This record gives sequence, C-alpha cells and structure tokens, in this order.
Amino acid sequence: MGPPRSPAQRKQDVLAKLAAQGDDVWVASASADGQAHLVPLSLAWDGDRVVLAAEEAAVTVRNVRASGRARLGLGPTRDVVMMDVVLDGVVDLASAPPDALRAYVEQAGWDPRGAGDDYVLLILRPTRIQAWREANEIAGRTLMRDGTWLV
Amino acid sequence: MGPPRSPAQRKQDVLAKLAAQGDDVWVASASADGQAHLVPLSLAWDGDRVVLAAEEAAVTVRNVRASGRARLGLGPTRDVVMMDVVLDGVVDLASAPPDALRAYVEQAGWDPRGAGDDYVLLILRPTRIQAWREANEIAGRTLMRDGTWLV
Repeated sequence: MGPPRSPAQRKQDVLAKLAAQGDDVWVASASADGQAHLVPLSLAWDGDRVVLAAEEAAVTVRNVRASGRARLGLGPTRDVVMMDVVLDGVVDLASAPPDALRAYVEQAGWDPRGAGDDYVLLILRPTRIQAWREANEIAGRTLMRDGTWLV
Repeated sequence: MGPPRSPAQRKQDVLAKLAAQGDDVWVASASADGQAHLVPLSLAWDGDRVVLAAEEAAVTVRNVRASGRARLGLGPTRDVVMMDVVLDGVVDLASAPPDALRAYVEQAGWDPRGAGDDYVLLILRPTRIQAWREANEIAGRTLMRDGTWLV
C-alpha cells in the first residue's frame, strides 16, 4: 500500500480516468420497487458530464429515466472512482448534439449509429465523486459534493 | 476479439474467477425507494455461495437485508461475470460458521475480526450467472438460471 494521495492528485487521477480512451464504467441503477441493476458500459466525458449509450429498452435506461439517478464505478476495484450522478437528459441518436455524439464515438471507440436505431445517449451529471485505492485512502475520499469540486 | 468461448469453458472460467485469491467484486444493491448503491468488496466462494464482509451499518448490508437480493459484477469490464444473488443469511462474526469465516479470511486475504465488532458476513446464493467478454459472447452468456447451472 503506497502513501495516500493528496486531494489534488486524486482529482487529477479522476479526470485522467474519465478521459481515458476505450474504458468502461460499471453502471448501477435501481427500479422503483428496489431491484438493483448493474452492467458495464463504455463511457465518454465531456468535461462536466458522463455520456453513455445504450439500447432504449435496456434496464439501465428504463431505471435511470424513471429515477433520474445512477451510481457509477470506475475500476479496477483497488483504484476506484465512485460517482453519484443525476440524469441531465436522454437523447436519441438522430437528435443528439453532434459534439456529444462525436465525443462519445471518439472516446468509446465505438459508434452506436452502427448498432441500430434503438440506441440513446444518457447524459449524466455527477453530484458526488469519491476516489480511493486502499484502506489508507478512505479518509479524504470525497472530491465532489453537491456537484461542486472540493479541490 | 477472440472466438467465443464454449459454455463449458465459460463455466470453468467463472469458477476460477470466483475462487481467485484477493479479488474484489462490484456489489450493487438498492433501497426500497429505488436508490442504487454500488461498492467494491472482497469476496470468498464456498462452492455454492458468495461470502462478503461489511460493517453492519453499511448501505449494502441495509439494502440487502431489506430486499433480500443484490447484483454482483466481477471484472475487468471486458471479461465479466454478472451474478444475480439472493440473501441466504447475515451472520455476525461471533456466530459465523467457522468454515465460512476461515474460507473468507483465506480467500480475501483479510480478517474482518481485526476491524472491529461491527462486521457481518453476507451469505449470497446465485440465482442467475452470466459471463461474457466481447460482443460476440453476448449470445450464450447465461450459464445459470433459477439457481441451476445450464452447463
């Protein structure tokens, strides 16, 4: 176990992870009756928001549309970024902002327009971000609260 | 992308992942009012059930106790095992079956008895298990259904 990182270092590492090419994020969502769903999805980061693509009929899309929120985990499990996010919008590919779609295609390395007409983009805004590696980084793990960076 | 694995190979890979030393699992649970929680935890596998340890006051313990279920993801995200699990029991460390506790300590590489009196073991039984790497393994991803291995 290395020494704990400073808050500024953790924020820098979080932003690097969010901008990494071709990474996936674990997306947890819940139905109104309290059934948890979890699935890995490619992600993009526009500087403020996470962009995901999924089939409109997917459990994740249904849950996030109804609840307006989700919880994301970027791994590996001993170098994690945990994000509580709220839904900014669900847009179908035909009406997606070109910049958001281009950013997604470039970062995810995959174009949902080739996968059929049923895909949508989920635009998610983080309200809380935490990052830790091992037990000695549990203290100081909260880097964003109520949508505001603390560092 | 390699060729898709056979069902038998996937089952063998799943069991190897579940028995791996020192691995963590992503644990998604939900509150009764539909708020998803997600956290990485060390795991052990007793051949039939997943064993986790967590503080009794943890959101995961509260959610799983109330709902009786969770969804687990073993990574990395492009070589995943997804498990829907039901709660077999919550036991405090003092009354935990010695075999379960010893198996947990050995596999997780960590003894919750050193972390205070507030830890419990969550004993979770899989009802559905899926495993896939890339898009060409989505077909045939279900290896267990209703608690019964299909292969």
